[in-house]
Amino acid sequence: MDNTFTVETQYLDLPDPVHLDCGRKLHSVRVAYETYGNLTPERDNVILVCHALSGDAHAAGVSTSPQAAGTRDGFAAEDRDGAAGKVLGWWDGMIGPGKAFDTDRYHVVCTNLLGGCRGTTGPSSIDPDTGKPYGSDFPVITVADMVRTERALLRELGIERLAAVAGGSLGGMQALQWAIAYPESVDSIVVIASTHGLHPQGVAWNAIARESIMGDPAWQGGHYHGTGRAPEAGMGVARMVGHITYLSAPALEDRFARRLQSSDDIRYTLTEPEYQVESYLRHQASSFVRRFDANTYLYLSRALTYFDLAREHGTLRNAMRAVQAKTLLIAFSSDWLYPPSASRDIEQALEAEGKTVEFHLIEAPYGHDCFLLEEARQTPIIRRFLEGTTQ
Amino acid sequence: MDNTFTVETQYLDLPDPVHLDCGRKLHSVRVAYETYGNLTPERDNVILVCHALSGDAHAAGVSTSPQAAGTRDGFAAEDRDGAAGKVLGWWDGMIGPGKAFDTDRYHVVCTNLLGGCRGTTGPSSIDPDTGKPYGSDFPVITVADMVRTERALLRELGIERLAAVAGGSLGGMQALQWAIAYPESVDSIVVIASTHGLHPQGVAWNAIARESIMGDPAWQGGHYHGTGRAPEAGMGVARMVGHITYLSAPALEDRFARRLQSSDDIRYTLTEPEYQVESYLRHQASSFVRRFDANTYLYLSRALTYFDLAREHGTLRNAMRAVQAKTLLIAFSSDWLYPPSASRDIEQALEAEGKTVEFHLIEAPYGHDCFLLEEARQTPIIRRFLEGTTQ
Repeated sequence: MDNTFTVETQYLDLPDPVHLDCGRKLHSVRVAYETYGNLTPERDNVILVCHALSGDAHAAGVSTSPQAAGTRDGFAAEDRDGAAGKVLGWWDGMIGPGKAFDTDRYHVVCTNLLGGCRGTTGPSSIDPDTGKPYGSDFPVITVADMVRTERALLRELGIERLAAVAGGSLGGMQALQWAIAYPESVDSIVVIASTHGLHPQGVAWNAIARESIMGDPAWQGGHYHGTGRAPEAGMGVARMVGHITYLSAPALEDRFARRLQSSDDIRYTLTEPEYQVESYLRHQASSFVRRFDANTYLYLSRALTYFDLAREHGTLRNAMRAVQAKTLLIAFSSDWLYPPSASRDIEQALEAEGKTVEFHLIEAPYGHDCFLLEEARQTPIIRRFLEGTTQ
Repeated sequence: MDNTFTVETQYLDLPDPVHLDCGRKLHSVRVAYETYGNLTPERDNVILVCHALSGDAHAAGVSTSPQAAGTRDGFAAEDRDGAAGKVLGWWDGMIGPGKAFDTDRYHVVCTNLLGGCRGTTGPSSIDPDTGKPYGSDFPVITVADMVRTERALLRELGIERLAAVAGGSLGGMQALQWAIAYPESVDSIVVIASTHGLHPQGVAWNAIARESIMGDPAWQGGHYHGTGRAPEAGMGVARMVGHITYLSAPALEDRFARRLQSSDDIRYTLTEPEYQVESYLRHQASSFVRRFDANTYLYLSRALTYFDLAREHGTLRNAMRAVQAKTLLIAFSSDWLYPPSASRDIEQALEAEGKTVEFHLIEAPYGHDCFLLEEARQTPIIRRFLEGTTQ
């Protein structure tokens, strides 16, 4: 497979405001997006790929955009940076000619989420009413708001119907929301390592990450832009928490065990890393802090915590009643943040409503990060599913 | 059973310096301790109980000491505060007349650990060389240093031999260290929810907690005493991380599910708790920050991370070779921080060396906190074990 196609992030300003679940309207929304593969004249071969908490519009290929930066999570982050200035998309192993989302056949679109910090309007954008960055005056957003924004972009691009919506984690929530909110527009959804509602331990991890950011005095109530300070310490800890929850304990054992940084013995230091896993965490934190906006982390973490199809629709079965799309669910045995049981719940609710659904549980050791790492094992499942659901 | 006996914390100044693994010596070490039950004239009925990261010397009874405060972890914290000013010991359900550690028969001793903040010399104590609190100039300590200090205290009390050393978590590490370092002094050890070496995910959680404290600017390089500021935000996040790792995901599901704080609906707030589990975390953090010294957290976290019998002795079997004590191991099925597999490793190493060991795996849902909560199920196991190993 040839990975060397280049892409450039594009930007589109939505003509209409986005109406949000919280009751507010967002004006002058800009959306960053990339596309891969050709659009058919009938505009019927579009796959929307949705990113997770720390992703961006650069899902595949080598970016020629100067601001492109590695946005993968966990172990996956390390194999992304290629030659200097050449940054591979976060799901490049899944999107391209002959890959799971085959760009010889499909026109794949990926947008940076509403609330993001990589080109789409978010808390670090300028509020047109004040001329200053929104900061924490940005409205609290939901997964439904993200999907609304994606739909507005696609309509501007002349796309009314999607062959598929696909994503992992928060991206999978968006795929579910698409099928529920716009059933007539979606032929199929691919929901990977995701859930209908994060379990309370997941709610807690997200809350801890946000508390860490907001507790950093440099956060300044969310208005740190232009002050020369940013909540880097709090963000670093938030990232460390996220990072460990994305991986499994056995994966950490396999990778680091209890190996020391120093080859000889412990050094009796309180402040410096002694173990390789400690050093790794610091590295992950510092590289993330450089490329990600703390407020975006807060807003997206809040949005994914809010997502709860059973609460919004009374029951999970009720939520699935309107779905017309065929559904592919993939979960990973070692994912304790978005455990397979959540995908099983979705499968059962869809089946109870007579919908077409298939669920694949992949035995794999890397935890939640598997959706970024286990490309070879997801590919045949997704290709076969898409062949069966699209013309 | 009658829980109403009262106790007072006592203090003893060690006449000799404590020689530490790091090569430094600590002078003028004070140890806070409590005792329950009568010492026989032969001084042969002593059980040393060792506390975990956030515990203190007040293990049982109702304290009459003005500084006593709740020091339990997790769900267990909530059932500790009785009537105003009356604080039950952190293991009161296990220590007392007719209980697991039966004070009708044994003289139970519990000390605040070296490095602690509840009466024993630690980083918030005055450094006799400078007249100021040690802060981060306190030497880095190990589990072996804690045990050395406990031994020095007991000798001052005229106690040379222990019927048992018992503890959970970090307390269990001390029990293991006692049996290995002073085999001739220990008849039996009771090692609950503990390990011979934290797995790398546990190393990571501890590192994240310490990064959170040290990243708080109020930490001031560890010299916050007397400045009117303390790293409360960082400590709060550290405590939240610890708290969630002490509990199991099913326990959180059972207790909180995804229930909202507000009875009606989400309130679209970025900064305030929306879910009951979020509110609970804030409460746990703020009550912990009021009663615990941040530097003590750092030092004890570092010490329990360092503990690694296989590294120190070449192999785990080597570590067990000198043991003479009979060993009781208890682990809990839902404990993912100190998983049953670690206790199994210890059992196998002891068996391979021909030692007397029994291992009990208790099926229980609360995670690591079980050692504080599952008192009724531990009691018969411990009583029977002690009957078989002591006169």
